[in-house]
Amino acid sequence: MATATATQRVFNFSPGPAVLPLPVLEQAQRELVCLPGYGMSVLEMSHRSSGFLEILDTTQRLLRELLAIPQNYQVLFLQGGARLQFSMIPINLLRGQDRPADYLITGSWSKMALAEARREGQVNVVWDGKATNYDRLPGADEWKPTPGAAYLYYCSNETIQGVQFATEPAAGDVPLVCDASSDFLHKPLDIARYGLIYACAQKNAGPAGVTVVILRDDLVARSGEDLHGYLSYRNHVKEKSLFNTPPTFAIYLMKLVLQWLRDEVGGLEKMHRLNQEKARLLYDVIDASGGFYRGHARPECRSLMNVTFRLPSEALEKEFIRAAEQQGLDGLAGHRSVGGIRASIYNAMPLAGVQQLAQFMRDFQEQH
Amino acid sequence: MATATATQRVFNFSPGPAVLPLPVLEQAQRELVCLPGYGMSVLEMSHRSSGFLEILDTTQRLLRELLAIPQNYQVLFLQGGARLQFSMIPINLLRGQDRPADYLITGSWSKMALAEARREGQVNVVWDGKATNYDRLPGADEWKPTPGAAYLYYCSNETIQGVQFATEPAAGDVPLVCDASSDFLHKPLDIARYGLIYACAQKNAGPAGVTVVILRDDLVARSGEDLHGYLSYRNHVKEKSLFNTPPTFAIYLMKLVLQWLRDEVGGLEKMHRLNQEKARLLYDVIDASGGFYRGHARPECRSLMNVTFRLPSEALEKEFIRAAEQQGLDGLAGHRSVGGIRASIYNAMPLAGVQQLAQFMRDFQEQH
Repeated sequence: MATATATQRVFNFSPGPAVLPLPVLEQAQRELVCLPGYGMSVLEMSHRSSGFLEILDTTQRLLRELLAIPQNYQVLFLQGGARLQFSMIPINLLRGQDRPADYLITGSWSKMALAEARREGQVNVVWDGKATNYDRLPGADEWKPTPGAAYLYYCSNETIQGVQFATEPAAGDVPLVCDASSDFLHKPLDIARYGLIYACAQKNAGPAGVTVVILRDDLVARSGEDLHGYLSYRNHVKEKSLFNTPPTFAIYLMKLVLQWLRDEVGGLEKMHRLNQEKARLLYDVIDASGGFYRGHARPECRSLMNVTFRLPSEALEKEFIRAAEQQGLDGLAGHRSVGGIRASIYNAMPLAGVQQLAQFMRDFQEQH
Repeated sequence: MATATATQRVFNFSPGPAVLPLPVLEQAQRELVCLPGYGMSVLEMSHRSSGFLEILDTTQRLLRELLAIPQNYQVLFLQGGARLQFSMIPINLLRGQDRPADYLITGSWSKMALAEARREGQVNVVWDGKATNYDRLPGADEWKPTPGAAYLYYCSNETIQGVQFATEPAAGDVPLVCDASSDFLHKPLDIARYGLIYACAQKNAGPAGVTVVILRDDLVARSGEDLHGYLSYRNHVKEKSLFNTPPTFAIYLMKLVLQWLRDEVGGLEKMHRLNQEKARLLYDVIDASGGFYRGHARPECRSLMNVTFRLPSEALEKEFIRAAEQQGLDGLAGHRSVGGIRASIYNAMPLAGVQQLAQFMRDFQEQH
């Protein structure tokens, strides 16, 4: 953790749980003991009270508005994180099918999803980036979907490797299933291109503890009748995310984040431009460093959310992290499975934080 | 919701999510934008940061201390609520066993758990309270465990019917599995009597979104090797509740609740005495009402947590709820499946709230 006076906020480049918009935290703080007009904290509200139902409804409405979600898609708020979706997707969409599911393996997260899918049916790995240590994404001519596949699964942004799809892979008639956990809401999407898209909240959409699943009606119908209660999309759709007690506070926080996105940021187009500007600041420093900073992802696959790079030595990387913390730049260590540096610059990371990091990187190179 | 000025707190008798201790909410509010010394909100902290690991460790340590949990028991913090435990228990402890699991059916929640268990193997219903609409619990001579059963499952407190076991059912050598969601931490327990005991937090232990599972080492070993990742107790034990991102803020809130239990209340013995005193206030009004208030549970099975009763007519029940809300007594409607009145008086419900409700009940009877 960075050095700071007791209540001075640092710039938090953690990959998730991650920085949240300050106005969101301040509003949550004001309302924490008593939500105005309700006589209690959101933390204490029954999930079946009119007060919470209004929060749930508003959250869904804001999501539908920001992403222009078509009416034939359902929006769910679930627990268990992306990990449980790795399993729920094949349990609901592959189990009992006499056709395979396709998986694009572009990094650590899609690989973990693949392992769960294999428990439920036949899986085709239609592309795997292992040969170049997941530093790039497949070109359009390097793979093709299996005709009639149950779905095509991919991860839009691999946080650990820092590679991101600029556009959806061409799946043809095969329903596209996307893990958007780490770049959800970073730009507008054409939801109609997806069969199912999901995201745990703790990067761009809120705190840890809630996962948004958006899925098309025809895929809901695919859930087996005999699934365990919590594992069935059909149950959650039928009960409108109230099959059991949902993570009420995390949903409330997401509502505040969505309101911030719409009202303070001005929508997803503007958010996208700001994210491009922030990412460019860091990639420019890397590209101008003459090899001192070496980006992990190939330039054409670089993530706008997670900027991953190495320094000339592990000793220098440690020193980089230590010195950054001294300046209030926190959470820059790469994932333990990869090492190096990772700057996660999600929606809520202010431009000022990225500017300070870019300056720090230039200074650090000069000093070493 | 009760009438109140914008920031005046009501007495919240909701069955869960439920009232939290005011000092807990006030501390969470103070620290919400910036946890002193960490430069960020708990909501923003990486689950692998030293700061959060300390919170997780302290939460577990406090639980171990308050309940005197033996060393051969593991403590997990999971997502998915009691509902997912309804499934995880038979998936981990019954699947592939050539012996049945025993279930005691004492109300709505144990009935729902039974439905999930049936998907995984042979289940014996060793007692079912249906004949008297779940108004009582079985006597010791009314049932016996199946010799060699995989486990005996029961629900220590049925929130909807308001019946509560005063002591654990005698399971002999069969491992006892307990859903303690709605009375966890309301009194000291001898954990060594249990094979597994679990509780979603949103009644006595914290907010919605985290579920505590305490299980004995020999039962962890029973999890199949090929289970879906999130559904395997073995995985969660191996990764010390960090198999994936846990619900960090809900765990932090639980830590504050446990500190309050230890330091403000003075431990579980004292908590139990206070809970007995609170419950007695309401049951005394019911018993002295000459039949105006009719308790659902038989006196010997009455819950200390959920006081359920009917009035002479549904019209009067509606009027009761409406008039109570006018006095800042909120959340008194019975479960939609049963109707009537339910006053949930969990640990955090202050004595003053129960006293006010008791007085209201006497006044209401006099007026009607």
